Amino acid sequence: MLETAELGRKVGKQEYKEQVPLLRTELLLVQNQLRNSAEFSAIVIVAGSDAAGKGRTVNVLHEWLDPRYLQTHAFDQPTEEESERPLAWRYWRVLPPKGRISVFLGSWYTEVISARLRGELDEAEFKQALAHLNNFERQLTDDGTLLLKYWFHIPRKIQKKRLKKYASDPNQAWRVTDQDRRNLRHYDELLPICDQLLRETNAPHSPWFLVEGSDRRYRELTVGRHLADAIRNRLGVQPACPAPPVVPASLSAIDPEQPTVLSSLDLTQHLTREQYKSELEELQARLNWLSREAHRKHVSTVLVFEGADAAGKGGAIRRVTAALDARRYEVIPIAAPNDEERARHYLWRFWRRLPRAGNWTFFDRSWYGRVLVERVEGFAQEAEWRRAYEEIRDFEELLCERGIVLVKFWLQIDRDEQAKRFAEREKVPYKQYKITEEDYRNRGKWDQYEAAVNDMVEQTSGLQTPWTLVEANNKHFARIKVLRTICDRLQDAVERKK
Amino acid sequence: MLETAELGRKVGKQEYKEQVPLLRTELLLVQNQLRNSAEFSAIVIVAGSDAAGKGRTVNVLHEWLDPRYLQTHAFDQPTEEESERPLAWRYWRVLPPKGRISVFLGSWYTEVISARLRGELDEAEFKQALAHLNNFERQLTDDGTLLLKYWFHIPRKIQKKRLKKYASDPNQAWRVTDQDRRNLRHYDELLPICDQLLRETNAPHSPWFLVEGSDRRYRELTVGRHLADAIRNRLGVQPACPAPPVVPASLSAIDPEQPTVLSSLDLTQHLTREQYKSELEELQARLNWLSREAHRKHVSTVLVFEGADAAGKGGAIRRVTAALDARRYEVIPIAAPNDEERARHYLWRFWRRLPRAGNWTFFDRSWYGRVLVERVEGFAQEAEWRRAYEEIRDFEELLCERGIVLVKFWLQIDRDEQAKRFAEREKVPYKQYKITEEDYRNRGKWDQYEAAVNDMVEQTSGLQTPWTLVEANNKHFARIKVLRTICDRLQDAVERKK
Repeated sequence: MLETAELGRKVGKQEYKEQVPLLRTELLLVQNQLRNSAEFSAIVIVAGSDAAGKGRTVNVLHEWLDPRYLQTHAFDQPTEEESERPLAWRYWRVLPPKGRISVFLGSWYTEVISARLRGELDEAEFKQALAHLNNFERQLTDDGTLLLKYWFHIPRKIQKKRLKKYASDPNQAWRVTDQDRRNLRHYDELLPICDQLLRETNAPHSPWFLVEGSDRRYRELTVGRHLADAIRNRLGVQPACPAPPVVPASLSAIDPEQPTVLSSLDLTQHLTREQYKSELEELQARLNWLSREAHRKHVSTVLVFEGADAAGKGGAIRRVTAALDARRYEVIPIAAPNDEERARHYLWRFWRRLPRAGNWTFFDRSWYGRVLVERVEGFAQEAEWRRAYEEIRDFEELLCERGIVLVKFWLQIDRDEQAKRFAEREKVPYKQYKITEEDYRNRGKWDQYEAAVNDMVEQTSGLQTPWTLVEANNKHFARIKVLRTICDRLQDAVERKK
Repeated sequence: MLETAELGRKVGKQEYKEQVPLLRTELLLVQNQLRNSAEFSAIVIVAGSDAAGKGRTVNVLHEWLDPRYLQTHAFDQPTEEESERPLAWRYWRVLPPKGRISVFLGSWYTEVISARLRGELDEAEFKQALAHLNNFERQLTDDGTLLLKYWFHIPRKIQKKRLKKYASDPNQAWRVTDQDRRNLRHYDELLPICDQLLRETNAPHSPWFLVEGSDRRYRELTVGRHLADAIRNRLGVQPACPAPPVVPASLSAIDPEQPTVLSSLDLTQHLTREQYKSELEELQARLNWLSREAHRKHVSTVLVFEGADAAGKGGAIRRVTAALDARRYEVIPIAAPNDEERARHYLWRFWRRLPRAGNWTFFDRSWYGRVLVERVEGFAQEAEWRRAYEEIRDFEELLCERGIVLVKFWLQIDRDEQAKRFAEREKVPYKQYKITEEDYRNRGKWDQYEAAVNDMVEQTSGLQTPWTLVEANNKHFARIKVLRTICDRLQDAVERKK
């Protein structure tokens, strides 16, 4: 998930100066409303990388909110008192009453991460600890608590620079602890741990919000606004059931001007016809060899192709299947579910199409329809598509555990390119069938689809289940990137398998 | 949980004969309604001990329901096809469509139990596997599936007898597999595994129903009736949110005439004054010694006393504290929560009173108020007290993991004894303060309280967190049983602790 927090989002000095007074008024207002209504309590968890600005952001919150009704709890090594009780005791005893906001710095996440890093927890124990945390958080949100979890992230390079700068400044040297130095040294081990933690504790009732920590003004405004929005949205909303609390979908929605994973793509990348031809030939040969190896070693492959209409999914798939044995693969185009499928869980139709050992399934559109078209068109209720992120993570985790290679592509084109391709399809007789009324309707919701794609990538990218975003304005470039990605992933899987 | 399925519940021949035709009509009716409405699918899981009548019950369901719309799936060793996919594949592919009922014999539980028994899963992996099952079942129920899980249980003695009888009958010998024989040999290892499995997968959205398997007529009628009730209750109820599906609270509610854990207690047990005095002295001396050992070894103790008004909770507690060092224990009487407590999660006030290492906390009434008085009086909503069973299990599990000795008593008296004690309190001046209007009001809801207590014991008794049911009509007998139980549990904990 973390790559979506390395986009270089920032806020200018001038804008910050203008926004802060408005935000402060808003924050004080909602804090006061919350206190008067005493409907629920709010817990703000601030966690993430060292030197990503966690402490400073909390200080700013104390400045902006009424500090008499705001409490911050930081937790270090358990005290003697604490170590005599179950570890959860120290969190339970300081839970805020209804009407109040508490900030937990680090909180229950810090200790699980450290224990895993030190090897005190093995993989299964780590998962179990995370499951415990999920239970705990569900108890809180079932009880009505508004739980807001912010994960601050900065790339390693910036982290290193900052720690160095702090250490050399006598006034800031205290900021750098031995633990920080250790974490920096172990950055590469820490990353997969944090990634897993973020995925497994990213429940619909208590989602994580990834905050880019590089720019001070950006992170402060973003967290402040999101906090104000979340409290305001919940106030006066008496939920009929403990189902998903009302929080803004993601931080991207807070400021649509900020770069996103999609807007950060360089769509001008392209290949000449000659480059394309020679690379295509080479990659297809490599893929063919790898596919035979994979079959011999019983490695199955599942491929997901998503993208806007006319993004070139079909064309890319054909360039892959051209290198494969026709008996070994199946291409499943996913349209609206039929009656048999509609009568069951939406994942059912994907489960049943999983390939046998050594074989391939291509999904031309996939289970991600749940959080894309079904979300945008309102075919799925909000509670349904929100919990789908977790359901999809579970599903993909089972595939990976079974050793199946899962490769997921999002083919990105811009609006102009799509218009050009639609026009072209209308001209070419054998392409006309491809273009429908619906395509034009979808086009009208371009921004909503983009927001849904951003959330999808943020919520469902894991180290083992990454999204490959493909710059697809140039078909040559896109197809080569797809082929190369598949070859690399497959080679890796084949080599690891004895 | 399993002890609540060894009560000797049975149904006479005549009653069975009268009931079956009615039940069959009812079952066919709801099955037909379900099919026409196609609102949801129903999955019936039949699991439990060998030779407990699982297969026969499923056969009877096929007789009673319209078999054209009922499918049964049994799963053995994974086939070649199955073993090439994630294990969940074989369950996903046979999920019933809306409107249909499927029976899963054994189902996903069989394989986890076997793997744990064979030692292929260690403790943490087993827990993780159970967490996966919970996720899977939650996905099904979130999607609207009515999931009914029946666990058939028979005591070891009966199991052994039955297997022997089958084996010696040429027409039935096929019923006894090698696996059955192995399981019988490992009964004592199997018991804690099943106990843990039942507790950890007993989620509010997919609770287990324990079926006594000893009497054929009882188990068939009970499962049949419960199934019909559950489907009828859900039909036409369009849940606003995926929260707890509407199912009858427990099997005890199906036939109030059957014995329960409470009704099975022999309340005539008593001790003479002399027996009492000598045992009291001896046990208090033993407890005093044990308490000093516990303090030295940092073993903490948490005691829960629940029981009807005037059941003798206070008197029993005083006989225990008399043996302890006054600096080391605290007695916490639990009444209606105060403002500070009401503003937080209901477990908060118990968390904060946990004892320091080597100390004691007595809860005179406890967190079980949530599923007793709050349930019966309607102070908690149904969704709240239903999910409380799981919250309480989580809470108590954390105590046990931390090495805290948790002893839970339910003091049971009958209505006549209570009336006698009330009258006595009114006569004795220094006891009058104890008796309030409320006591009489509670008395009017005796049956509802009994049902709540039965559910509580069934849902929250674990091997590590057992309920001790105390026959309390005779105060002497009750106090001695309480003292002896505490001594035994504490001695065990002290000896285990290095």
